[in-house]
Amino acid sequence: MKKIALGVDLGGTAIKAGLVNPQGKILRDTTVPAEANQGPTHVIKQIIKSVHQLIDGSSYKKRDYAGIGVGSPGSVDLDGGTVKYPPNFPGWTVVRLGDALHKEFGLHVEVDNDANAAAVGEAKLGAGIGHKDFIMVTLGTGVGGGLILNGKIFRGTFGGAGELGHITIDYNGPLCNCGNHGCVEAYVGAKYLTQRAIEKVKRNRRSKILSLAGNDTRRIDPKIISLAARAGDATALDILAETGRYLGIGLATVVNLLDVRVIIIGGGIARAGKPLFNPIKESVRRHVLTPMKDGLEVLPAKLGNSAGILGAAALVL
Amino acid sequence: MKKIALGVDLGGTAIKAGLVNPQGKILRDTTVPAEANQGPTHVIKQIIKSVHQLIDGSSYKKRDYAGIGVGSPGSVDLDGGTVKYPPNFPGWTVVRLGDALHKEFGLHVEVDNDANAAAVGEAKLGAGIGHKDFIMVTLGTGVGGGLILNGKIFRGTFGGAGELGHITIDYNGPLCNCGNHGCVEAYVGAKYLTQRAIEKVKRNRRSKILSLAGNDTRRIDPKIISLAARAGDATALDILAETGRYLGIGLATVVNLLDVRVIIIGGGIARAGKPLFNPIKESVRRHVLTPMKDGLEVLPAKLGNSAGILGAAALVL
Repeated sequence: MKKIALGVDLGGTAIKAGLVNPQGKILRDTTVPAEANQGPTHVIKQIIKSVHQLIDGSSYKKRDYAGIGVGSPGSVDLDGGTVKYPPNFPGWTVVRLGDALHKEFGLHVEVDNDANAAAVGEAKLGAGIGHKDFIMVTLGTGVGGGLILNGKIFRGTFGGAGELGHITIDYNGPLCNCGNHGCVEAYVGAKYLTQRAIEKVKRNRRSKILSLAGNDTRRIDPKIISLAARAGDATALDILAETGRYLGIGLATVVNLLDVRVIIIGGGIARAGKPLFNPIKESVRRHVLTPMKDGLEVLPAKLGNSAGILGAAALVL
Repeated sequence: MKKIALGVDLGGTAIKAGLVNPQGKILRDTTVPAEANQGPTHVIKQIIKSVHQLIDGSSYKKRDYAGIGVGSPGSVDLDGGTVKYPPNFPGWTVVRLGDALHKEFGLHVEVDNDANAAAVGEAKLGAGIGHKDFIMVTLGTGVGGGLILNGKIFRGTFGGAGELGHITIDYNGPLCNCGNHGCVEAYVGAKYLTQRAIEKVKRNRRSKILSLAGNDTRRIDPKIISLAARAGDATALDILAETGRYLGIGLATVVNLLDVRVIIIGGGIARAGKPLFNPIKESVRRHVLTPMKDGLEVLPAKLGNSAGILGAAALVL
């Protein structure tokens, strides 16, 4: 009874939705502006519009759909698919998104936060296949994560588990966005990564990072750092090595705590490949307890650009 | 069908065993020397002896026993109740302790490591009653722990989960016994705690810590620090406040990661009470993400001196 899933990736600017088959192939997709500034009722209308665009033009019947999966920013209460205080959505407080979609389409709906959806996506369709336990890390503006334990997403008592970006690695370290000091995110989040790159480039103006940014330090971002690293730029490689080291320290804490030895890493900067992954592996290995060194794996996420839609779809697959 | 449990607390010097009723009352107990230097076969004999001392003199029939629970140092494989490389047991490599006890007594046997047994004990008979998720920390020579998630001990992929002592709080921090830097244990383990006390006392020789230690700094230990704190000694209170602060930083990482908001703390130094618990609470609260501050609880363990026997018994209750 393998069915077609509707995956909706809700973002602050765009809603991306896709029709996904059980093998994780996107059969059809669409993008609709979120127009979040017009408030929750409007955003829900836009989501409904995106799903209609997929369904209305297709030959599938209602019984062919496994349901609608939504990956949303903010924290999500499974009960009623309630999204709470998503960042970048002005005026949203608590919105029963799941109920609204169920009412409109009469389909099974699952809403979860985007980091959890990404983990479920990798578990069912990506690098997590065959691993009953793994730690998923998404490197982006923030550092998000999800824990797959015994084959299922682990949500904790109140649904907020998986905040891998807010593992402290130095309580005297740099100030993090969360108000705390020395969180992993304060070392490897996009903003901090970029800041470190700008400082290094100012000292070494021959770095490829600067030329790729059109000699404008304000245009430096993780993508440029990663491109420069691929081109062999020493400054960029140095930044990725540092990033890997810091991230590895935080991940070693997670491994020691949970005895889960498979780590999957996705998000923009993860595309840098070996110059990032080798330092991560080395650092995790160096910092975990001796018995935990056996069987450690640090794997790149597989879902790439479509992770948002596929992760959301995986919630109902 | 509430039955009587046999709890065996295997230590490097002594084997403590008890007959425990379903309410967690120790009906009868015994202590037998482990004589670990005589090798695994001898230690197993001693364990068997301790259980015979409890069973042979009692009026219970075989059907009255729920089984034998053993809390053991080292890592434990549930399959066959196999104890691997326990510290302080020379010559032990891999010993199928569970199988040996089952063969002798024909009873159901569960073997787990002592930190997990302590967590299960608190879950079934102590401060964890009514909490489906909690983090158990045992402060002793080392800093151990156990995670109760969804009402069960969480063991991770290979059974080693719960190493709360080896959460990094400062990757540049003091060297830990595990070879890493800045682990929680390197701040709050008995050895490090004592070292800090000795340094402070050298600067302030009027501290009650020194008089309680008979003016011999070599006799300072966590118990003396905790007694001095109870007597209002400023140096001792200062040490406990620091300890609470460091431990709280590490526990905040666990809360952010697992969204588990109940923390139970046991072990010798935990008897210091409020002068330790208040700083822990304050520090956890200060370092967790805002949504996680709701409903945070830091509770003292309840099983006290009998935690070893009761935790072991709880494995089969």
